[in-house]
Amino acid sequence: MPYIPLEPHLPGITGLLEYRKDTGQPIRELTEILLRGTSSLTRAERELIATVVSNGNQCKFCSAAHAATVDMLLGESETCAAVKTDILTIADRVREDGKLVTAAHIAAAKVAGATDIEIHDTVLIAGLFCLYNRYVDGMATAMPEDNSYFTMLADRLVNHGYYRLPQGYDHLKKH
Amino acid sequence: MPYIPLEPHLPGITGLLEYRKDTGQPIRELTEILLRGTSSLTRAERELIATVVSNGNQCKFCSAAHAATVDMLLGESETCAAVKTDILTIADRVREDGKLVTAAHIAAAKVAGATDIEIHDTVLIAGLFCLYNRYVDGMATAMPEDNSYFTMLADRLVNHGYYRLPQGYDHLKKH
Repeated sequence: MPYIPLEPHLPGITGLLEYRKDTGQPIRELTEILLRGTSSLTRAERELIATVVSNGNQCKFCSAAHAATVDMLLGESETCAAVKTDILTIADRVREDGKLVTAAHIAAAKVAGATDIEIHDTVLIAGLFCLYNRYVDGMATAMPEDNSYFTMLADRLVNHGYYRLPQGYDHLKKH
Repeated sequence: MPYIPLEPHLPGITGLLEYRKDTGQPIRELTEILLRGTSSLTRAERELIATVVSNGNQCKFCSAAHAATVDMLLGESETCAAVKTDILTIADRVREDGKLVTAAHIAAAKVAGATDIEIHDTVLIAGLFCLYNRYVDGMATAMPEDNSYFTMLADRLVNHGYYRLPQGYDHLKKH
């Protein structure tokens, strides 16, 4: 049971972003830019950062949602670069505590080809999912009744993105 | 030394928000709404949530910045309500892990008078500062050379807010 009244048909983060649309909007915008905007990291790589952080924070909703999104993107046979392992290490250190990222972690990522902006975005995506995971779990939001929900959500994130659905797309909100 | 090239005269979060202005904008907007928008929590109470979380995460820059802001606001003799202790407990649990917030924490805050939206905002502010602290420390940003910087920054946050300074306010950027 969520700690505040949220719409029962909107599990996890989805009900929270509707509860306060004015705070939901800049959160959606930040996520859209970071996860789907122009970047030298592939969309799959960025969703993988979200998944690794959500997994480490044991946030079931976010882990399931972004793992489903990675699966869908990799199904399009994108190639994850060698740099991935190194930026995922940085993401996991950020998740635990920003101060655990060392100059050695950064040097290793740079040797593997990571750029400044990729390092910046990795740290900020990891920080953003530390916000999301705490928001979702700190409010005790519901999990969907059926795991097929996450396939539908992944489809929405891959093909529509992180902004609110426009009017008339209510069928995508239901599960 | 920051892990990526940031403007040397912009310590802590300030250089990061300038490094990527497009991601900086929704972060600033979210913070402005949560910390300074219409709310039944006073501005001092909300800055106190930011301070408690930043302190717990041992993020020196954010702790100093928001403690200075609380001091400046309380200097205006705002009264912190009894509910404060209970929402600060929730904020500190969120900081460690969202799943540590129990129904008993929520019940205690409600008995002390906290509303649903106050509980929502407490959890989201705590989550936001888990993002900020990791962003600032994960990138190894600089601390200002002089602690008087934080009095100037508090004055800016209290009187101008979290948006970017308009052109012509460069004197407020220097320290």
